[in-house]
Amino acid sequence: MSKVTMEKIVSLSKTRGFVFPGSEIYGGLANTWDYGPLGVELKNNVKKAWWKKFVQESKYNVGLDASILMNPQAWVASGHVGGFADPLMDCKACKARFRADKLIEDHFAKHGKEGVVDGWPHEQMEAYIRENHIKCPECGKADFTGIRQFNLMFKTFQGVTEDSSTQIYLRPETAQGIFVNFKNVQRASRKKVPFGIAQVGKSFRNEITPGNFTFRTREFEQMELEFFCAPGEDLEWFDYWKQYCLDWLKNLNMKDASIRSRDHAKEELSHYSNATTDIEFLFPFGWGELWGIADRTDFDLKAHMTHSGEDLRYVDPMTNEKYVPYCIEPSLGADRVTLAFLVDAYEEETLEDGSDRVVMKFHPALAPFKAAVFPLAKKLNDEAVKVFEMLSKEFMVDYDDSGSIGKRYRRHDEIGTPFCITFDFDSLEDGQVTVRDRDTMTQKRVPIAELIDLIRESQAF
Amino acid sequence: MSKVTMEKIVSLSKTRGFVFPGSEIYGGLANTWDYGPLGVELKNNVKKAWWKKFVQESKYNVGLDASILMNPQAWVASGHVGGFADPLMDCKACKARFRADKLIEDHFAKHGKEGVVDGWPHEQMEAYIRENHIKCPECGKADFTGIRQFNLMFKTFQGVTEDSSTQIYLRPETAQGIFVNFKNVQRASRKKVPFGIAQVGKSFRNEITPGNFTFRTREFEQMELEFFCAPGEDLEWFDYWKQYCLDWLKNLNMKDASIRSRDHAKEELSHYSNATTDIEFLFPFGWGELWGIADRTDFDLKAHMTHSGEDLRYVDPMTNEKYVPYCIEPSLGADRVTLAFLVDAYEEETLEDGSDRVVMKFHPALAPFKAAVFPLAKKLNDEAVKVFEMLSKEFMVDYDDSGSIGKRYRRHDEIGTPFCITFDFDSLEDGQVTVRDRDTMTQKRVPIAELIDLIRESQAF
Repeated sequence: MSKVTMEKIVSLSKTRGFVFPGSEIYGGLANTWDYGPLGVELKNNVKKAWWKKFVQESKYNVGLDASILMNPQAWVASGHVGGFADPLMDCKACKARFRADKLIEDHFAKHGKEGVVDGWPHEQMEAYIRENHIKCPECGKADFTGIRQFNLMFKTFQGVTEDSSTQIYLRPETAQGIFVNFKNVQRASRKKVPFGIAQVGKSFRNEITPGNFTFRTREFEQMELEFFCAPGEDLEWFDYWKQYCLDWLKNLNMKDASIRSRDHAKEELSHYSNATTDIEFLFPFGWGELWGIADRTDFDLKAHMTHSGEDLRYVDPMTNEKYVPYCIEPSLGADRVTLAFLVDAYEEETLEDGSDRVVMKFHPALAPFKAAVFPLAKKLNDEAVKVFEMLSKEFMVDYDDSGSIGKRYRRHDEIGTPFCITFDFDSLEDGQVTVRDRDTMTQKRVPIAELIDLIRESQAF
Repeated sequence: MSKVTMEKIVSLSKTRGFVFPGSEIYGGLANTWDYGPLGVELKNNVKKAWWKKFVQESKYNVGLDASILMNPQAWVASGHVGGFADPLMDCKACKARFRADKLIEDHFAKHGKEGVVDGWPHEQMEAYIRENHIKCPECGKADFTGIRQFNLMFKTFQGVTEDSSTQIYLRPETAQGIFVNFKNVQRASRKKVPFGIAQVGKSFRNEITPGNFTFRTREFEQMELEFFCAPGEDLEWFDYWKQYCLDWLKNLNMKDASIRSRDHAKEELSHYSNATTDIEFLFPFGWGELWGIADRTDFDLKAHMTHSGEDLRYVDPMTNEKYVPYCIEPSLGADRVTLAFLVDAYEEETLEDGSDRVVMKFHPALAPFKAAVFPLAKKLNDEAVKVFEMLSKEFMVDYDDSGSIGKRYRRHDEIGTPFCITFDFDSLEDGQVTVRDRDTMTQKRVPIAELIDLIRESQAF
């Protein structure tokens, strides 16, 4: 079995319609990507699977969909206006611009050193770069300016004038939309602590160096849960949600060898955090963060209380105790985890007859098409289409009547369709079709009337 | 039956958690709205219902999810950089700013005149305002500046410098993301004309006067289909999709009296359009556009061919004929149609016992909760929860154990839950529960094992 590479994933994504370069006919736009017909199904299935487990089946959580544009004071309160910035320095020789922390991390990697630059003061980074004669990756000179802070929020103006009073931001995370709605949601849904608010939506960060396909993009989609609990119960709930997240990945067939979780050491933790874990995935370019799970204590709600003047405390209906709930935040990138599922599903196999196949072993709940219907011959089209129409009322299915059945199998292996259903001449007589399994490649005859149940059962996770 | 008003809808939306004012704890942000726990389910159901009919069940269409940020050349080609602007004028006395066309339309309305200002040249608008002594709605003076064009696209900067070379736009419509991907989608999905590309996603317009709750907001979500066909077959397909859209609304129980379709007269049509129809909904504030269906001929693909230099022609595989397909565009606002379903579902009824109820008569496919499970008494909790858990694997359901059964019925009437399922002491013995119908308020005993089928059947449309 050959190794999956990013080149193979990017190429399959384009030719089969998972992901296209954004605005490609205009030469693209720096690392924007568009989900094609299969990609949008895959990503929607990922989002649905998350919503199913984190909202629908959860006794604790409810959903929310807050707008991308928020009152800028929310970003003052959250600390994003003041502190959400990258440390940038310019090469004096060639004018290229870099993140100082990335220059140092690259230097670490080149010299086999371990270390965390996160949290270093500017002076420490400037000194390290100077003392280690770190060179400009573009021109090779070692002469940088000092560090300037570059805020990562996209700015825009709302209304007819462009001045500071109308300046707003594209949200850099969905989480704050949850915090500002804490009271409204709690009141309307009559939830008692512990409870959570879940949200899926776009966020924007003006990253200096986006890259690695859809792993890091300036426009991206998040699936965030903010789970509110009583102070003191936070570490227990932290463990609960960490395990819940790992289970979600594993129940969707993510391979054990592809994931690891990395607990942050005490000195890595933000000053307000009691615990943080990153669930990482082994991409072809190395381990990358998928899911950040953080115990954020009462930091966010307190910040919004202070800045808004609203009382966001919760009153326990049993004890009448008033307190600011603690918050556990599992934050997952929808594009990242979709990419992870793409990478994890990719297999190249040599078959018994010596031929090769590429097969995407998606969990059926994630597969873009749940099944494909093939008429064995053109003259069976009318009857086979009826099977397609019946199934398409329930599931996303394909109808494919071009080329040999073998070719159609290969085509659907490559896009991960779990079941290929062939309607043949016998089907006219016995009301049965041949169902071929993507992974085992075994075939069995199944009554048409049982297809819906067969597919429905495959969707469970 | 009293009349539904916007006040009632806004109030119910807030108290029950359909829609909250955006950033409310910071005093809001000009007409932004956040969907609460019930609103996000309702809106997601609306989007799913659209996707089901326009992608999943359609033989013709495939999906797409293009990014919000696009190469700015796409907006030059589409005409948005040059022409997507409102005609603004300032009151010289009080400095308030207005849309000239709105000032004239308000003047029309006040004097019972009919007329269309759309397409008037600036000189004509300025002259009309002058000659009719139209007054400033703010201060009452009649002294305006000339008209200036104000582009409605939100601008932002990508990357570390802010100059014209890094200026990009938030898309003002999802349609252009489809056109620039026409070739990639056609090639990857191996679709033959006629075929369509469907997309759901956020768009942004810097409207001068957003308003009417979620009817007109600066950030909004669209559901657009671009359907490509051979030139000459466009008017036939236009009729097909117009009917398809009307059927979609009606199958989801939208009342006949609530919708009308208005065909544009020849002089109203854009220069490139062969036909346009607006499907309008009767909101409490009057008729408002819901769905614009336009025959856009080959205007968009030709514009992108010219600007990008890419050949976007389609080659007919049978005849080898090469042509630019014509395009039918049904464009629906997700927020608007969600608001329309909220308004249309609202009923106030007087019951036989003289009491009143508010009931949201959503089609079950749109209802936030598909069912609610009630234990008749606290001691039945353990068993009733099992019913909830079984159902929640399939559907969004609520569990409600507070207050009398009557109160729970009222609560779920008000949020449109089609079935209330009461687990009582008999249920322990006979494995049956009492299912109460939202609309007829009739009750029947149903075996627990049949609940999933009962709910599933209610979802069909």
